[in-house]
Amino acid sequence: MTISNQKTDMSVFENYESEVRSYSRSFPTIFEKAKGYQLWDKQGKDYIDFFAGAGALNYGHNDDAMQQRLIEYIQSDGLLHSLDMATNARAAFLQKFNEVILKPREMDYKIMFPGPTGTNTVESALKIARKVTGREKVVTFTNAFHGMTIGALSVTGNAFKRHGAGIPLTYSMAMPFDDYMDGIDSLDYLEKMIEDGGSGIDLPAAVILETVQGEGGINAASFEWLKRVEELCHRLDILLIVDDVQAGCGRTGTFFSFEQAGISPDVICMSKSISGSGLPMAITLIKPEYDIWGPGEHNGTFRGNNLAFVTAAEALNHWKTDAFSESILSKSELFKKRLNQFVDEYPELQGEVRGRGLMLGIASAKAGLSGQLAEAAFERGLIVETSGPDDEVLKMLPPLMIDEEGIEKGLDIIEESIKAVLGKEEVTV
Amino acid sequence: MTISNQKTDMSVFENYESEVRSYSRSFPTIFEKAKGYQLWDKQGKDYIDFFAGAGALNYGHNDDAMQQRLIEYIQSDGLLHSLDMATNARAAFLQKFNEVILKPREMDYKIMFPGPTGTNTVESALKIARKVTGREKVVTFTNAFHGMTIGALSVTGNAFKRHGAGIPLTYSMAMPFDDYMDGIDSLDYLEKMIEDGGSGIDLPAAVILETVQGEGGINAASFEWLKRVEELCHRLDILLIVDDVQAGCGRTGTFFSFEQAGISPDVICMSKSISGSGLPMAITLIKPEYDIWGPGEHNGTFRGNNLAFVTAAEALNHWKTDAFSESILSKSELFKKRLNQFVDEYPELQGEVRGRGLMLGIASAKAGLSGQLAEAAFERGLIVETSGPDDEVLKMLPPLMIDEEGIEKGLDIIEESIKAVLGKEEVTV
Amino acid sequence: MTISNQKTDMSVFENYESEVRSYSRSFPTIFEKAKGYQLWDKQGKDYIDFFAGAGALNYGHNDDAMQQRLIEYIQSDGLLHSLDMATNARAAFLQKFNEVILKPREMDYKIMFPGPTGTNTVESALKIARKVTGREKVVTFTNAFHGMTIGALSVTGNAFKRHGAGIPLTYSMAMPFDDYMDGIDSLDYLEKMIEDGGSGIDLPAAVILETVQGEGGINAASFEWLKRVEELCHRLDILLIVDDVQAGCGRTGTFFSFEQAGISPDVICMSKSISGSGLPMAITLIKPEYDIWGPGEHNGTFRGNNLAFVTAAEALNHWKTDAFSESILSKSELFKKRLNQFVDEYPELQGEVRGRGLMLGIASAKAGLSGQLAEAAFERGLIVETSGPDDEVLKMLPPLMIDEEGIEKGLDIIEESIKAVLGKEEVTV
Amino acid sequence: MTISNQKTDMSVFENYESEVRSYSRSFPTIFEKAKGYQLWDKQGKDYIDFFAGAGALNYGHNDDAMQQRLIEYIQSDGLLHSLDMATNARAAFLQKFNEVILKPREMDYKIMFPGPTGTNTVESALKIARKVTGREKVVTFTNAFHGMTIGALSVTGNAFKRHGAGIPLTYSMAMPFDDYMDGIDSLDYLEKMIEDGGSGIDLPAAVILETVQGEGGINAASFEWLKRVEELCHRLDILLIVDDVQAGCGRTGTFFSFEQAGISPDVICMSKSISGSGLPMAITLIKPEYDIWGPGEHNGTFRGNNLAFVTAAEALNHWKTDAFSESILSKSELFKKRLNQFVDEYPELQGEVRGRGLMLGIASAKAGLSGQLAEAAFERGLIVETSGPDDEVLKMLPPLMIDEEGIEKGLDIIEESIKAVLGKEEVTV
Repeated sequence: MTISNQKTDMSVFENYESEVRSYSRSFPTIFEKAKGYQLWDKQGKDYIDFFAGAGALNYGHNDDAMQQRLIEYIQSDGLLHSLDMATNARAAFLQKFNEVILKPREMDYKIMFPGPTGTNTVESALKIARKVTGREKVVTFTNAFHGMTIGALSVTGNAFKRHGAGIPLTYSMAMPFDDYMDGIDSLDYLEKMIEDGGSGIDLPAAVILETVQGEGGINAASFEWLKRVEELCHRLDILLIVDDVQAGCGRTGTFFSFEQAGISPDVICMSKSISGSGLPMAITLIKPEYDIWGPGEHNGTFRGNNLAFVTAAEALNHWKTDAFSESILSKSELFKKRLNQFVDEYPELQGEVRGRGLMLGIASAKAGLSGQLAEAAFERGLIVETSGPDDEVLKMLPPLMIDEEGIEKGLDIIEESIKAVLGKEEVTV
Repeated sequence: MTISNQKTDMSVFENYESEVRSYSRSFPTIFEKAKGYQLWDKQGKDYIDFFAGAGALNYGHNDDAMQQRLIEYIQSDGLLHSLDMATNARAAFLQKFNEVILKPREMDYKIMFPGPTGTNTVESALKIARKVTGREKVVTFTNAFHGMTIGALSVTGNAFKRHGAGIPLTYSMAMPFDDYMDGIDSLDYLEKMIEDGGSGIDLPAAVILETVQGEGGINAASFEWLKRVEELCHRLDILLIVDDVQAGCGRTGTFFSFEQAGISPDVICMSKSISGSGLPMAITLIKPEYDIWGPGEHNGTFRGNNLAFVTAAEALNHWKTDAFSESILSKSELFKKRLNQFVDEYPELQGEVRGRGLMLGIASAKAGLSGQLAEAAFERGLIVETSGPDDEVLKMLPPLMIDEEGIEKGLDIIEESIKAVLGKEEVTV
Repeated sequence: MTISNQKTDMSVFENYESEVRSYSRSFPTIFEKAKGYQLWDKQGKDYIDFFAGAGALNYGHNDDAMQQRLIEYIQSDGLLHSLDMATNARAAFLQKFNEVILKPREMDYKIMFPGPTGTNTVESALKIARKVTGREKVVTFTNAFHGMTIGALSVTGNAFKRHGAGIPLTYSMAMPFDDYMDGIDSLDYLEKMIEDGGSGIDLPAAVILETVQGEGGINAASFEWLKRVEELCHRLDILLIVDDVQAGCGRTGTFFSFEQAGISPDVICMSKSISGSGLPMAITLIKPEYDIWGPGEHNGTFRGNNLAFVTAAEALNHWKTDAFSESILSKSELFKKRLNQFVDEYPELQGEVRGRGLMLGIASAKAGLSGQLAEAAFERGLIVETSGPDDEVLKMLPPLMIDEEGIEKGLDIIEESIKAVLGKEEVTV
Repeated sequence: MTISNQKTDMSVFENYESEVRSYSRSFPTIFEKAKGYQLWDKQGKDYIDFFAGAGALNYGHNDDAMQQRLIEYIQSDGLLHSLDMATNARAAFLQKFNEVILKPREMDYKIMFPGPTGTNTVESALKIARKVTGREKVVTFTNAFHGMTIGALSVTGNAFKRHGAGIPLTYSMAMPFDDYMDGIDSLDYLEKMIEDGGSGIDLPAAVILETVQGEGGINAASFEWLKRVEELCHRLDILLIVDDVQAGCGRTGTFFSFEQAGISPDVICMSKSISGSGLPMAITLIKPEYDIWGPGEHNGTFRGNNLAFVTAAEALNHWKTDAFSESILSKSELFKKRLNQFVDEYPELQGEVRGRGLMLGIASAKAGLSGQLAEAAFERGLIVETSGPDDEVLKMLPPLMIDEEGIEKGLDIIEESIKAVLGKEEVTV
């Protein structure tokens, strides 16, 4: 049986899969193969990828070297599954992550494998912060997204997803993110609320944040704001957790998204592109003084996804020099220039360019417009999604290895989609 | 760079990995390869596997056919990562799971991909039960283990792991499992507590249970007890969730662990061996009438681990006939016979044989003895762990494809370990 | 304006008072005066009181000496309201309570005024237990009743009242009370659940209990059971809270209901009859080593109800000798003898006599019967209510000062009511 | 025994009363009698009352008419305690409250007796709001004070008191009160946080507020702000609860504190001065459409404090004309004028005059100063306390019936205290 020859169509998903499915609704075709920044569906139609698995495919699809490593590892009968037993692949990753990432940045962290998903690393971060401080509440920010399990969901902003919990989500306090609202200095506010003994805001165990909020609408905190959050946390003995699941692994131009802000989080959550290949993997970085776990106090079956370790170690080669980082930043300029042109040339978009590195978006004040653009782009061969509380942002996360040609092609499709949607509107109105 | 040639030893883990690591402490060696029911470490020492990735490797390590499928898929540039977009691999799994597993058993369920781990499927099950019923509390049982994220942890029994939450775990009510305590009919008790308007026990959204508790000490509920739980749930309009993460996929002799009990759970959680290969994957089966999710109401980055889908579809071939199931049951008899002999011949063990299918254990009333046995066995080339609240059970979960020779070799090591440990005791006392 | 001359009828309550009103529905008449164990309504009809304000009028209505003290105090311009400032009346109560109650019993407790109601003393007890132990959960028992505010409600059993919270009630664990269920040794069960590290039951801060459950259906714990609870608490470093709000102040024959059990609770909650006169008052007794409150950490406007202190001090005169206690026990015998006769002579009652001292009841297995009896008794001039999760118990709490004549008259009415209700049933069936 | 002749001194409180006692520490003398706005201690020293039982004695101590009514009622053998049975006294209060207060203001509310304290009425208000809306969270404001039981404490701001709970306080969301912080429009902020689907702030059941925060530091919300809160609540289908426990009963110049704001709360909490005499009593006013309680769904032993009903009805006579209201406002002017003089003449106070009606304060930016002033005033014969998160406000709540002479005398003492404290400082510095 060759899988790709099976007779399947979208009805398989409608008939057998739960109503919870979502992306197979937005991108209603069956994908068959992918390479770099491109995908092909069963009908052979090709797509440019400005989505990158929501940030899980920063190095593109099916990198040659990673494929090679996977096949070698499989053929060598290397362990695929190992819980948290010691394996060659695990050791190699630990060693290389330390050498290529932590040491050169003078960062001293213990590496935890909390289970292979973003929500797992967030849950582990919340746990350790509560254990270390003996406090329960955690400060989270408007439009934060940290995951779907109850601990992570309680620090997530989206009302629809929160409601899915079916229980009140407690132990968290939502505060305004940088630039959330005109006229409010969000950190003066946060500071006053925490320090005021009468505010009703309990002293928190931790502050958790994304430096650039992806799901929340491509909201980038300023470096100054991040620095001030760090100072506040240090002064009040609160742990600072940076959830770098989506913004990390180079997405904003540096390996960690907070490097340019010059901050030193107490706990760092990574997942998505950490495996390099899109295979499930997550790590939690913890400052040694806070690594007070008991053995097995947090565990899980899939902490040892060795295929992911193999490609993760391979992916770290990108970070041995500054070249990769520089290329991201120069592509970012290219991208932003064009997005700004769109906003200028098509004022009907009521658009605003947002983001940092290759985590970019156009927010539109016109309800529903961004969704229409994404739909039009898909028809034209571009995978791109929306984010934000009202899906008001057309969110662009191309693979970081995309070349200039890919960028231009993708952006051309976006421009065509803009024209089509705005034109269509004229017609329909 | 070939990974296996790197200079690594256990110090890598001690230096770089978090204190939370556990199995690399119990089995302090670096594993290099594995096949079927065997592993080899870097020094070339071989081990028999009575652990099977805590139930994630029911089909053994590196099954030839699965390896072949993986390599083909990688070489065809199939998508590795796809969120919940439609891919060939996902479609093939859905179709085959329906054909091979659900249809022949006349089971009608929608399949949800809740994220690739056991705790994710449990969290999704709790959410949907709360959404369907509009209630919050969930009945769980003594010595239950359902996962490490806050939702799943709140229905988990282990005090050490619960304490790791750092917050009070609420919305759950712990009730005695089958045979938990002499003189208590646990279901009469549960029934009275739920039905009595003065009991202080709120009407729950759901009852969640494992038919055989693995982490809790290999406690097998009787089929009659399971049937009575189902009746109670139906009568009181409570959803019945079976967490078949560890006991499912053939572990107890049938694909689902509850088949012989003749019950029809409202929600079924599966993970661990569902991918066949030990790659991260989980599914949640939901009766169509309860599949009231909104699109994306529960989501996650790694719902589309296509390599796992490829091996999962391959693994289902084992279930096209009854042969696999029958072989498990006959191996179980072999196993149990020998375990009973141990208990009889070595009364100093103060042992009791527990379990069903190839999910077996010897509980020892002697504090610390089971841990000593596991350690002695490891030295002699057998991977086996303990479970239960006081690690009082030597827990045996061999790959289901193990042959008679493997079983006998492994059990010989256990017998030698018993002799050694009991002998050592004589000497030391 | 003399109040008793106003033109009022029950429509005032129907028109102006909230739907939450209850006793004005069960006893639909306007009461005008009361003395001892008797009440009179506006129409001049007299009633015998087997209800005693649900235990708040142990010394009867309008005791002459207490009335005298009240009038003297008012006429002397004594402070009526004083928060927790020092007043003569407060000092006198503190001193006398110590001399008459605590010292002779060799009990060493600090006296806290937590606010003037039962639920306030329970909330204060839960708070101090959590503060002392640093733990959150509290063990409560089936059919417990501790109050209506969220903290007290969370340890209350009644589902209807719990549901009124509108939020999930957490931080409590309901366990079976003494004799809750045939075949379950409730304390073996509790002990195992608490001591078993895998049970899912967290180590609690406290156990809270009533020695005789009033609202829960007149369930009297045996002295042996109480002693065993105390031993369990001491062994596991759990605080024992006795809620003596209803069973205390002589109701079961001794000042504290637990005296005969020979236990020494860590915290004792008193209210209802502590003021002697039915005026709002409550105290929380705390062992000195646990009295670690900060000043004002728990406060409230009505901690200084001086009129209540005045009558409370007067009421303590009853406890200077053993005579009052002995009289309660002898009246109890009288009562129980007759109740047992009823049960024997009227097997259609399917009755069971319950209780201790003058906290007595007949539980009937016939649904609705007890309510019919209470209604029939009211028509015949007896105030008596029902309790239990299904209102299945006819609950008798006469003022402790009732005389033999009053007892016999009241019981005669009950017997007549039994005849009437059973007779009516014969006719209707 | 005449109570006032007993040999008692402050050692009684130190020896027998819990460490939680507070006002007997601030005002260390034993009070013997009180009349109007004056108190006398055992040594015969007289004090002017600028405290009024924290707002429970708006009509002064021992009003002649109320004393007369109490004595008559006691002498008539009227029921003192009646749970929520119908009594003359209860009927009379219901009728009169409706006639004198509700009808003339065209207010349509059902009256609930939730138990006789402020925290009881707040708990009942939160319950009904959650029941009506089916939601759990409640918006509360910085520096709010609503009570000490767990439900009320969860909407209270003070960190010290919150910490006393010993459990995380959840189901509430603290928002900035009017003028909490420069540069933040607290209602724009609240509105955006509630309406934004990504904010992490769940749609609340209710907003609870005090129009003037007493314990929080005499913070008076503007009428415009109150009106805007009401509009927000109505638009979003959120119940508006006004806690008028301290600010109600004329304290700010009108019977309800919100009358001038022109708002119509859905639920109103009253206690403290509602009984007129300082006897424990509370009522919850609920709009008829929200009065969906089941009978007895919230109950309590002391819902029928008839002595309180008697004086409460008497107290309502003050509200038959506008004279009382007008007198409060004119006394307020007198008061504020002098307070403003203090602030102007003694710049070392770094003072700010706050408040409305006869709920006034001087906030001082100098740490500890207000406490020193209160202490100096006590020595000089004035009872006055501090409030605010750092006890930074000298809080003045004289009985509303105080005359000009009393006001001037009290304010003279404050001025002397200011001089003494500021002078002393000069010496010590």
